[in-house]
Amino acid sequence: MTKRMMKLGMSMRGLGYHVSAWRHPDTPADGTLSFEHYKRNAQMAEQGLFDMIFFADGIGIREKDEPKGSLARSGFEIVEMEPMTLLPALAAVTKHIGLVSTASTTYNEPYHVARKFATLDLISGGRAGWNIVTSWSDAEAQNFNRAKHLDYDTRYERAQEFVEVVKGLWDTWEPGAFIYDRASSIFYDEGKMHLLNHLGKHFQVKGPLNVARMPQGRPVLVQAGASEPGREIAAESADVVYASQDDIPAMRAYYDDVKGRLAKYGRDWDDLKIMPALCPIVGATRAEAQAKHDALQELVDPLVAMARAYNALGDLSAFPLDGPVPEPQAEAQVRSHQERLMKLVRDNGWTIRDLCRYLAGEGGSPVIGTASDICDYMEEWMDADCCDGFNITPNQLPGGCEDFVQFVTPELQRRGRFRKAYEGKTLRENLGLKPHVNRYVRQRAAE
Amino acid sequence: MTKRMMKLGMSMRGLGYHVSAWRHPDTPADGTLSFEHYKRNAQMAEQGLFDMIFFADGIGIREKDEPKGSLARSGFEIVEMEPMTLLPALAAVTKHIGLVSTASTTYNEPYHVARKFATLDLISGGRAGWNIVTSWSDAEAQNFNRAKHLDYDTRYERAQEFVEVVKGLWDTWEPGAFIYDRASSIFYDEGKMHLLNHLGKHFQVKGPLNVARMPQGRPVLVQAGASEPGREIAAESADVVYASQDDIPAMRAYYDDVKGRLAKYGRDWDDLKIMPALCPIVGATRAEAQAKHDALQELVDPLVAMARAYNALGDLSAFPLDGPVPEPQAEAQVRSHQERLMKLVRDNGWTIRDLCRYLAGEGGSPVIGTASDICDYMEEWMDADCCDGFNITPNQLPGGCEDFVQFVTPELQRRGRFRKAYEGKTLRENLGLKPHVNRYVRQRAAE
Repeated sequence: MTKRMMKLGMSMRGLGYHVSAWRHPDTPADGTLSFEHYKRNAQMAEQGLFDMIFFADGIGIREKDEPKGSLARSGFEIVEMEPMTLLPALAAVTKHIGLVSTASTTYNEPYHVARKFATLDLISGGRAGWNIVTSWSDAEAQNFNRAKHLDYDTRYERAQEFVEVVKGLWDTWEPGAFIYDRASSIFYDEGKMHLLNHLGKHFQVKGPLNVARMPQGRPVLVQAGASEPGREIAAESADVVYASQDDIPAMRAYYDDVKGRLAKYGRDWDDLKIMPALCPIVGATRAEAQAKHDALQELVDPLVAMARAYNALGDLSAFPLDGPVPEPQAEAQVRSHQERLMKLVRDNGWTIRDLCRYLAGEGGSPVIGTASDICDYMEEWMDADCCDGFNITPNQLPGGCEDFVQFVTPELQRRGRFRKAYEGKTLRENLGLKPHVNRYVRQRAAE
Repeated sequence: MTKRMMKLGMSMRGLGYHVSAWRHPDTPADGTLSFEHYKRNAQMAEQGLFDMIFFADGIGIREKDEPKGSLARSGFEIVEMEPMTLLPALAAVTKHIGLVSTASTTYNEPYHVARKFATLDLISGGRAGWNIVTSWSDAEAQNFNRAKHLDYDTRYERAQEFVEVVKGLWDTWEPGAFIYDRASSIFYDEGKMHLLNHLGKHFQVKGPLNVARMPQGRPVLVQAGASEPGREIAAESADVVYASQDDIPAMRAYYDDVKGRLAKYGRDWDDLKIMPALCPIVGATRAEAQAKHDALQELVDPLVAMARAYNALGDLSAFPLDGPVPEPQAEAQVRSHQERLMKLVRDNGWTIRDLCRYLAGEGGSPVIGTASDICDYMEEWMDADCCDGFNITPNQLPGGCEDFVQFVTPELQRRGRFRKAYEGKTLRENLGLKPHVNRYVRQRAAE
């Protein structure tokens, strides 16, 4: 049996995903506002032949200052560069790596999004990708003329129509539409320009798009695809999905479910790449890797960690850090979260400090070990046919990216699991996706 | 009397401002979709020590296909890169030149605009500028859920509030707000972060902005500032105005009017730079310059020129090109335009072909001559105290930019009218503008 090769993304938001990354002496604390920081990481990821770098995003500071004083102690997602402005600059200082940015369907207009990603695709020579999100926080809503965020159903309904419009705009000019015939004064072939004339519940968009001739035909579409409507949007439109599950059986169930939906949209099993998050912490020995992890955990500010339990357990900041976790005084908004945390506390006999350490790492368990350990883990998941690769979420940057490229990439290559050179010119080609066929070309071929 | 030095911008949209630029053998017909084209021009303008490059923009194809078939024969503003995606890439391949992009207050949200320009300012090391426009065409409205564009008063009312919100967001973090104190775990100084809490007629924006520490404190604000409300916005907020008038007396009246409004906003005469458009066509001799102009005029497609008179004179495409211009069959929407054109036709005895040549150049008369002629013209305007510099609108690119940098810039320098090296690091410094003072710092100083 041939071993399946894997696809790899590097998630490059801020200083990495650990809340204490900014306090670590090896990270540039002011890096989230520094182009040099992102340039260095992007070039390193390209040296490691990553398919793409990926930027998550929020349109506002989503964390609350609860307990009071905690926000100013957190360097996590406070200030950072706007990714659709940052990525074109990174396009100019890289050659091969894909450039994926988040853009919200709730707080944008499809014409802007279609135009910006089309332009990024042109500037980068076919390396643009759009991570489609609907946004969920009141903090973002309050920067966009609303008190609360849109309800779930409306957000997803709008997202579905939004994506439809963007795809339509990208197809308004057929390949070869631009003739540039100076002698006869024909700039474009009228038969290859199409108005969109979209008239839907959320959008009215006439078109055509005033950008065209994207190297990829259509930028790569990325989706989290966790929820039921998210899975459906992913099956219909996405090229890449980042959804994660806690273990192989859960991941396998997810993988089969989403891939199983492709056929009804006329798509093949391999037309969608599923890449769960992975946070590897690599050392020359297991002890060294563990020490790297512990160093960040040691830097966790209890107040910052307590902010993560505030909604579930209330304000813990007045209690002794090495004392017991008090019983919650009120019922939480999300009761299941309260119950899950209190069960962990009771089962493990945790103090508040112990709970804080746990909360700092919540949201994705790291895989800690040697390059060989990390590769074993990745191969196990690949061989269980539950994913097509991974989206690396480094605990800190640049360290997390450099360690991976220096130690893990060569080992994956040695095992025949990862490319030794970029296969294609575009992100779509490197991901092994089919070329995009313009809808009017397809229609004509079918006639 | 000391001669006043001038400020210079290079307007870099598309292939230049002449409708036939794309048909000229020296322009890259496909350049509007080519990063290399813009990179070459931006680097050339920087070599010529221009203060800034400037991108006008439309969010849709504004020209109509009237007469039928004319649109496909026009290469003007059909497809082009989105400027806020293009400029960060140009920031990465230039060092000194200012980067000014248009963004519409009618079809954007202030939080996005504040964030993107703040990020561009960071990436470029303080070279970002925002050209504030309200958009005017139905074609753009129809890409943004509307049949018609917003009425004039609403557009300007919204623009005024929009700019207020953006300026407010840029001030939400005071200078020095970010402490990055790893030991005590203080990322930012709580006393230097301010919520905006804007609650107005058009926008509700809480803030703070999730980008900060812009090198310029505030990106440079640019405005066309022609209309009455436009002049008021310019006087209140703009650093640069691009408004043009046909001759020196009209320009002088405009200059004195707008500059005279500054005081009531607590601003000084020199706090606003007024830079009218100028299209210079330069040759080693006057005959060579004239030949350059004629070459483009020869390439004017009559159908494309007729599109510019369609609203005023109706469909001329069925009449003989070398025959007389027929009397209008209907009353025009803008009657003054119809009357002005028909007067020119009668006074000059123009055929339809003559009229077309005129229409192709409408929107700004070129100044044709040697470098010395061009400099004489520019000095005359400067010495009449009716402007602070010019926004060059080349008839074609790269030729129009290259000719200026090669021939005109050295002559201006020789005459002591233009810099020999960039004075500062930021656009604000090069324009000779005062540093921006954060509103909270100002308030505290006043207490």
